[in-house]
Amino acid sequence: MTLQSADEGFARTLAGLLPEGTIGPAEPRYLEEPRGRAVTPGALLARPRSVDEVAAIVRASAAARVGIVPWGGGTGLVLGQVVPDGPAPLILSLERMAAPRGIWPEERLMAVEAGMVLADVQAAAEGAGLLFPLSLASEGTARIGGNLATNAGGTAVLRYGNARALCLGVEAVLADGSVFHGLKRLRKDNTGYDLTDLLIGSEGTLGILTAATLRLYPRPAALATAMLAVPGPEAALSLLALAEAATGGAVSTFELIHRQGLLFLDEVMPEVRQPFAERPEWSVLVEIGLAPGQDPQAVLGAIYEAADDRGLVGDAVLAASEGQRQDLWNLRERIPDANRKIGAICSHDISLPLGEIADFVPRAGEAVAAFGPFRINCFGHLGDGNLHYNIFPPKGEKRDAYLPQAEGITRAIHDLVHDHGGSVSAEHGIGRLKVGDLERYGDPAKLAAMRAIKAALDPAGILNPGAVLRA
Amino acid sequence: MTLQSADEGFARTLAGLLPEGTIGPAEPRYLEEPRGRAVTPGALLARPRSVDEVAAIVRASAAARVGIVPWGGGTGLVLGQVVPDGPAPLILSLERMAAPRGIWPEERLMAVEAGMVLADVQAAAEGAGLLFPLSLASEGTARIGGNLATNAGGTAVLRYGNARALCLGVEAVLADGSVFHGLKRLRKDNTGYDLTDLLIGSEGTLGILTAATLRLYPRPAALATAMLAVPGPEAALSLLALAEAATGGAVSTFELIHRQGLLFLDEVMPEVRQPFAERPEWSVLVEIGLAPGQDPQAVLGAIYEAADDRGLVGDAVLAASEGQRQDLWNLRERIPDANRKIGAICSHDISLPLGEIADFVPRAGEAVAAFGPFRINCFGHLGDGNLHYNIFPPKGEKRDAYLPQAEGITRAIHDLVHDHGGSVSAEHGIGRLKVGDLERYGDPAKLAAMRAIKAALDPAGILNPGAVLRA
Repeated sequence: MTLQSADEGFARTLAGLLPEGTIGPAEPRYLEEPRGRAVTPGALLARPRSVDEVAAIVRASAAARVGIVPWGGGTGLVLGQVVPDGPAPLILSLERMAAPRGIWPEERLMAVEAGMVLADVQAAAEGAGLLFPLSLASEGTARIGGNLATNAGGTAVLRYGNARALCLGVEAVLADGSVFHGLKRLRKDNTGYDLTDLLIGSEGTLGILTAATLRLYPRPAALATAMLAVPGPEAALSLLALAEAATGGAVSTFELIHRQGLLFLDEVMPEVRQPFAERPEWSVLVEIGLAPGQDPQAVLGAIYEAADDRGLVGDAVLAASEGQRQDLWNLRERIPDANRKIGAICSHDISLPLGEIADFVPRAGEAVAAFGPFRINCFGHLGDGNLHYNIFPPKGEKRDAYLPQAEGITRAIHDLVHDHGGSVSAEHGIGRLKVGDLERYGDPAKLAAMRAIKAALDPAGILNPGAVLRA
Repeated sequence: MTLQSADEGFARTLAGLLPEGTIGPAEPRYLEEPRGRAVTPGALLARPRSVDEVAAIVRASAAARVGIVPWGGGTGLVLGQVVPDGPAPLILSLERMAAPRGIWPEERLMAVEAGMVLADVQAAAEGAGLLFPLSLASEGTARIGGNLATNAGGTAVLRYGNARALCLGVEAVLADGSVFHGLKRLRKDNTGYDLTDLLIGSEGTLGILTAATLRLYPRPAALATAMLAVPGPEAALSLLALAEAATGGAVSTFELIHRQGLLFLDEVMPEVRQPFAERPEWSVLVEIGLAPGQDPQAVLGAIYEAADDRGLVGDAVLAASEGQRQDLWNLRERIPDANRKIGAICSHDISLPLGEIADFVPRAGEAVAAFGPFRINCFGHLGDGNLHYNIFPPKGEKRDAYLPQAEGITRAIHDLVHDHGGSVSAEHGIGRLKVGDLERYGDPAKLAAMRAIKAALDPAGILNPGAVLRA
């Protein structure tokens, strides 16, 4: 079934169904994605204000066979929000559905519309004395509906889980325009298939999320934060196990940093303060959320001593103030900026079983070396097994000359990840960028089931066509 | 498409495909369910030893259009494991697939076959110095595949989540005999739809779980356990919020107990030790898993004082030894036994938004009173919003005379639950017992999506036919 373009006739049809100002041409910012890798040549834009308006739009699109791209903050990194070819789609932005629907502090829950910016969700939780733990670099722009549609990860997954784990229920418009009223405030509900978790992470291809009920958590009484040099990834993982045992599972962040990232900072962002005069080959940023009565310095000190006894750590900086803590986080958060300034040939959002990482890292290094004397920045959310494994040109050289090798390098790295039981998309999703990777590495029975589910729930293929599964 | 009986010809076909002793008639224990409410009149039994054998059985059943009932420990309470009418099914027991597949203590993961008894899974985790937190009354008989197929709950959901939250991936045989190899050791993996969470909780109607990767947790350094009298459910929930804040979210158990349960113990189990001479109308059993260095008595004492200041507690017993802790747990765990001795007219596994419970309880009491002077035992996992709301005859009378009223009472209670945004199956599932409830109270868009998914993944309807959705 071929889709039709969202042409002028369709625009008039939609405009006739909806309040003035809901339908119009999409400005350029709706047509681009953050890394400039692809654009939607042109599109119609809908900015509905209610779930009923979303349903009306979907019904009209289904009748006209027009593809719909659900649009959050536009921060996705795998081209889930752009349609480079095919009939012009309708971009359906949730930006005008950005209000909280309710907050229940004693239930530690809030319900929000899908267009609420993640940072605003965090702030609303904080206003009630609670924590919404989802945290990622684009939180000032990304919207919660997009975070859920892509099952976003970030820096607190280790303790609190991915976006899916933070959501108790959703409201969504399905491909026929029906509304799934699943905005429940229930922690136990075994009445049928888990449609909520199916919609979460489906990247807008099975339904359009319009609202969600989110779990909130007690704010830690104090944060204990440290940066520790470690002999390597294996020692880092032993340190993590030790810290988890010592704190009863309260480690919220455990980020791996390779020397290459520190040297990139030296090279292009020398103003970033670094704790270690000699840049260690491997280090970790650890943060632990403490219960009332626990002393951050005492907890970190005890972990350090136990780790030191086992030879798991070298130099260490334990943040003694909020300012020192911010410095350590700043170091971690500027590494991606430094990467961008250096210019990667290719980058990889991979995950591995924790026990495979120590073996994977040197093998991947060898695989990359076979292509040339590239610089590798391997960093990321080690506690989740999620590494960002990015390849850069030799020092002093530009990436452009090496771009033809990118595909081969990526294939070699992804093959190795697959051999180690890992994933070629840990937290960014499939979008349109990794459809081929999913076909190559995905479990065949799972792929067949996915295609059957897509055909069953969206038989005309109007929801985010070409994302996740080939149209 | 009508199903066929698992007749002698089919038995011979299967026997020809599989090692001797795999196929035979089902003994009575495979045909009954624990409350004696229904039986399967007769069935063929398959006891495969490997996923390949399961796949061969499913392929043969699909070809012959014979219904398959996946069978774990047989402890389900909603008739998911019995087929009272229709063509005789094949019962596929996973009991011979009961081995661990691997344990990775530093990853805090283990992989197990679906037929492993829950208590054995717990013991294997403990052997590695870790905790598998799923815990429920039937853990000595129930098998992990059944726990996952029904998304089991239990007494530690508050901190650790339902069975679904404890599983990172599954291996499963789908309705066409293909094998979904999803036994991953990854905490982040965004490669396509969440087939794992869809299979979990689908009660064997979308696939047969053959193995699972399970999350393990650090064992708490100490347990702080107390029983506290409270003015009512609303105060209990404020006490829970206070305890969560004071411990950084470390409350694992928060069970509500009504005086009726204590009086039932007095009536039929006077040997059970009770902490309060005067039976309080409402009380709670609280357990908190502490991190190393935290003192149970100090933590409980601080919570008690803060709660006392706000008028949230009355009498209290803080367990000062493991023996005292066991006494408190014994009290809670014998209440269902006492219920059985008294004999319920009807019972309800319901959940409610926490903030609705204080309003629901008196309204439900009034609704029941309209039917007669019944005794109500309302108890359960208050921290999860999950109440077991059971109705008993007046003292000295037998249930039998009142059974004709059961349907009306259940309808009244379920209607009220639904009005309060609750669920009519919190942790037991739908099985065949609550198919009508799901049709009555389920979201229509969700039901339509469920039917479409079932038809897409099991077009011949061979997997647990008649469970969850009408065949």
